[in-house]
Amino acid sequence: MGEEEIEEGEKQIVTPWEVAASKEGGRIDYDKLIVQFGCQKLDQSIVQRVEKLTGKPAHVFLRRGVFFAHREFDKILDAFEKGENFYLYTGRGPSSEALHLGHLIPFMFTKYLQDAFKVPLVIQLTDDEKCMWKNLTVEESQRLARQNAKDIIACGFDISRTFIFSDFDYVGGAFYKNMVRIGKCVTLNQVRAIFGFNGEDHIGKVSFPPVQAAPSFPSSFPHLFGDKINLRCLIPCAIDQDPYFRMTRDVAPRIGCQKPALIESLFFPALQGETGKMSASDSTTAIYVTDLPKEIKNKVNKYAFSGGGDTIEIHRKYGANLEVDIPVKYLSFFLEDDAELENIKQEYGAGRMLTGEVKKRLIEVLTEMVERHRKARAAVTDEMVDAFMAVRPLPDMFG
Amino acid sequence: MGEEEIEEGEKQIVTPWEVAASKEGGRIDYDKLIVQFGCQKLDQSIVQRVEKLTGKPAHVFLRRGVFFAHREFDKILDAFEKGENFYLYTGRGPSSEALHLGHLIPFMFTKYLQDAFKVPLVIQLTDDEKCMWKNLTVEESQRLARQNAKDIIACGFDISRTFIFSDFDYVGGAFYKNMVRIGKCVTLNQVRAIFGFNGEDHIGKVSFPPVQAAPSFPSSFPHLFGDKINLRCLIPCAIDQDPYFRMTRDVAPRIGCQKPALIESLFFPALQGETGKMSASDSTTAIYVTDLPKEIKNKVNKYAFSGGGDTIEIHRKYGANLEVDIPVKYLSFFLEDDAELENIKQEYGAGRMLTGEVKKRLIEVLTEMVERHRKARAAVTDEMVDAFMAVRPLPDMFG
Repeated sequence: MGEEEIEEGEKQIVTPWEVAASKEGGRIDYDKLIVQFGCQKLDQSIVQRVEKLTGKPAHVFLRRGVFFAHREFDKILDAFEKGENFYLYTGRGPSSEALHLGHLIPFMFTKYLQDAFKVPLVIQLTDDEKCMWKNLTVEESQRLARQNAKDIIACGFDISRTFIFSDFDYVGGAFYKNMVRIGKCVTLNQVRAIFGFNGEDHIGKVSFPPVQAAPSFPSSFPHLFGDKINLRCLIPCAIDQDPYFRMTRDVAPRIGCQKPALIESLFFPALQGETGKMSASDSTTAIYVTDLPKEIKNKVNKYAFSGGGDTIEIHRKYGANLEVDIPVKYLSFFLEDDAELENIKQEYGAGRMLTGEVKKRLIEVLTEMVERHRKARAAVTDEMVDAFMAVRPLPDMFG
Repeated sequence: MGEEEIEEGEKQIVTPWEVAASKEGGRIDYDKLIVQFGCQKLDQSIVQRVEKLTGKPAHVFLRRGVFFAHREFDKILDAFEKGENFYLYTGRGPSSEALHLGHLIPFMFTKYLQDAFKVPLVIQLTDDEKCMWKNLTVEESQRLARQNAKDIIACGFDISRTFIFSDFDYVGGAFYKNMVRIGKCVTLNQVRAIFGFNGEDHIGKVSFPPVQAAPSFPSSFPHLFGDKINLRCLIPCAIDQDPYFRMTRDVAPRIGCQKPALIESLFFPALQGETGKMSASDSTTAIYVTDLPKEIKNKVNKYAFSGGGDTIEIHRKYGANLEVDIPVKYLSFFLEDDAELENIKQEYGAGRMLTGEVKKRLIEVLTEMVERHRKARAAVTDEMVDAFMAVRPLPDMFG
């Protein structure tokens, strides 16, 4: 194997459809990704500004670096400080019946941002994308979109500030006009470079980037934003969505629009270890929001990759490797108590706490979270979905 | 110059955006085009069937071979004979303020088909296409679409059977779903081969073929056709639009739809001679529906290419070359009286009639036609445009 081939194998690949670390067993190098994508690191000074501006403690995802990168989030804060508003845009490709914990992360964080800044939010369900990429029928994609909308609503969004839409329902009018304006500014060569499309890909795929770009511009939502066409947009998302918005930011000034700002998260690791995202097709890699308590217990105990020592003696002597330990990773996403998390890390890292004890605590945390979600989702009626998805003004959007 | 280069230069090019005969001064070889595209010649037996089935004389464009090619028009007639209905679909890319005579041809013929078969008609104004290809703003494209709609309505369409729509207004819902279904079935390599797109073309262009394809399927118009999703579609158009519908017919069975049938016309020649289509950007190549009588007179006398002899003596001796004579070509499109046309051809061809006399008759015919159109257009109000473009059921579509 030549040197060039080794280098090729070492490259990490992050696109909206593929996340692969640089080599077998390796992890995504997020610092390298920031350089590769050209975004900025989200540092502690920004976290402090957010706390000061909102008068609320920063979300655990913010203070623990789950949302670790951004594009012009600081400019959003500058503007907000001067009394200017913005809106939030996030989304989901409805490709499966049930969401897993990784899918919840942008929504949990977006809910926090909505509450903290008191701003409107648009949530795009890309049923058209999934119909094209996953070869689902139009009808099945739309059905999944509504199912997923229930899980999203269960995250607690404020209906007076939230518009959820499916592309199959909403594309048209002002939105379609923006799709055309965007499509005019991006060449085939560019989308091939950004998204890796090739000649065998169908033209539906090539047509899609403007659909995901359009919600970045307030003029795509005349019923919400009217003539506020200079309102800035902040997009919380996992960093694999960055290619769409690099393209969008490149196009924005050419069509007389503001560039959307981004705040971007790490991938939530699979139970088997931090080599990429969880897989929607392999149910043993992820905890689903529909998992029963005994399934959660079984998955964590059986599949969660441990950084603990192979035997109790070795573990007591050398402690756990926290860098690769999945129970500790998961707790750092979902255990809100900073002091308790710190204590677990110290005790476990020093070998005084055992893997079984950490897993037990994780099972408690996840079970409580999933049960809470299950209850919230059960309370979401079809009428509520209709209400969130109705094309309507949001009278008290700001404040 | 090598043999291969000569052959290259001899190829005729016919795409929706470019029509070029095989060599300098050459004419489009329509027989070759039928073979090249794989459509069928529209022969006299079909014309006779149309007369028999409709109980009306065939339109001059049909009996004189202006509509000279088709795809499965015979199947439409078979089905119609058995009592099955169909609908008509034609369209226009609104790239200019005023239409020229070439633009009117599909509309004049479509009106005849609508009246003869008593069937519904959808007319697509591709303002999105022109916004992307001609680099017009969205607003300017929409304005031109409405202006052109007035010219189209002036052709006399029956409002109780006609739905005119602009893409910027109408794309969405059932129409967008069909766009996605179509886009999934066509690869980038295919559109490059069909339309000649390359890497420097923008993705808006690549996204457009499904927009022009979608009206071929009745499910794109639920307000018109409801559950009649197997209704067949007949598309009258100039043959340069064939690539769109080759693609559409290829896709149709893969998405469970009927293939649209086509009836295709020659290009209306420029005043300067039959080397391609008229040019919307060079006003001396065409007669516009807004031309004043003195402009028509001046253009015909000054620019219409004559096949007559260089001197009266030569003309009297050898007669006119009717194959290249534009006044005779134009008369064969627009002079309805078969006997008079035949007489002109004989007398002019034999040198007994002079170019000036033929041009004089053409000026009369065109002036009357343009004046009639001008009056009809002046009577088209904005309210009528709104009425034709309203998304509404057509209660008495058939019969």
